[in-house]
Amino acid sequence: MTNTSAANKNPRAPAVKSPWAVVPDREQQREAKRHAVLSTAAQLFNERGFHATSLDDIAARLQVSKPTLYYYVKNKDEILIECVRQGLQMTIDGIEASRQAGGKAIDQLMACMRVYAHIVTQDFGMCLIRVGDEELPAESRKELRRLKSAIDHEFRRLVAAGVEEGSLQPCDPKMTAFVIAGALSWIGRWYQSGGEYTPEQVADQCIATLCDGVLRRTVVAA
Amino acid sequence: MTNTSAANKNPRAPAVKSPWAVVPDREQQREAKRHAVLSTAAQLFNERGFHATSLDDIAARLQVSKPTLYYYVKNKDEILIECVRQGLQMTIDGIEASRQAGGKAIDQLMACMRVYAHIVTQDFGMCLIRVGDEELPAESRKELRRLKSAIDHEFRRLVAAGVEEGSLQPCDPKMTAFVIAGALSWIGRWYQSGGEYTPEQVADQCIATLCDGVLRRTVVAA
Repeated sequence: MTNTSAANKNPRAPAVKSPWAVVPDREQQREAKRHAVLSTAAQLFNERGFHATSLDDIAARLQVSKPTLYYYVKNKDEILIECVRQGLQMTIDGIEASRQAGGKAIDQLMACMRVYAHIVTQDFGMCLIRVGDEELPAESRKELRRLKSAIDHEFRRLVAAGVEEGSLQPCDPKMTAFVIAGALSWIGRWYQSGGEYTPEQVADQCIATLCDGVLRRTVVAA
Repeated sequence: MTNTSAANKNPRAPAVKSPWAVVPDREQQREAKRHAVLSTAAQLFNERGFHATSLDDIAARLQVSKPTLYYYVKNKDEILIECVRQGLQMTIDGIEASRQAGGKAIDQLMACMRVYAHIVTQDFGMCLIRVGDEELPAESRKELRRLKSAIDHEFRRLVAAGVEEGSLQPCDPKMTAFVIAGALSWIGRWYQSGGEYTPEQVADQCIATLCDGVLRRTVVAA
């Protein structure tokens, strides 16, 4: 979605349509259709599981023929790789934006938690959590694990920096980052849109619990 | 493992072997072998994924022929169902033991967290987290989800009781239980035996983070 919307809003696009523009337009349309194939597939994988979803199911939900799909994707493996990659890339972009925004480590960490919690309630992010990559060919699995590992390391780096600046409790940043990633990733397992809470409310509550802990504080007499 | 080792150590077993004992002995041996098939399968599912593991792989690791496996299990689906069921049953038994032990809700919750964190570092528990049940036939999936739901509800009940008794912060017990379950389940995703920490150390650190939160407390002058 990021790519196509960014391309549509390209401020350098000429006001008068060039006849050559027909080529990028076609490219954009193709990209939008490819995106529809991928997000529909992600929804089905999340609902039924990867192996229980066929290309026929994906084509049926999109109301196109199965041969049409092959114009946009090679096979089901490639679809899963792309879905997981998009979920990961959205996360990495969100983390990068938090970093660009600067500020204290704790603020950047809060922003990253919010980004991640939001992404796992969406099609590609949920796919990242529900389907995983165990079933993918070794080469693609390796690439996706590299991206995942970059996200893990960014959370660890922010936790370590938060401890350093005195805003977080002293801890092993690796373990604390896993607790954060686990609690937030789990949202992608249980969340159903249209439920009791909006994604924002879910993120707020989970992040508050992670920040303050579940135990009630003993009130210290001042 | 629990069943067979308990049976082997049965203190009421007669000192002189009865000829009739040959029947239960065979049953016990069969059960021990079936357990070996299941736990070997769980290890392979955890390492390579469910679909990437064949009955041939399981037989090879056990150094038996594939037809031998069919004496203990029907097919790969049945193996996964049993692995996940055992992980769930171990959790339910642990929760039940915490309940029997009685005490305050917070103590029971801590005991349940410890039980669950430990189980997800073991073969069947890890299988529960890494493989999931999306790929199983609808009937079995339904049964396993019923067991999972019982575990969820027990965590929620304990959180609600903890809030009631004043040991936990006021919260939505459902959301807090998800944060706890997520952080602890995630251990089953990243934990590797022989790593930096023992399962007990991992459990201690994750539970401490969940209890106290990641933020550093502001020191109140007494």
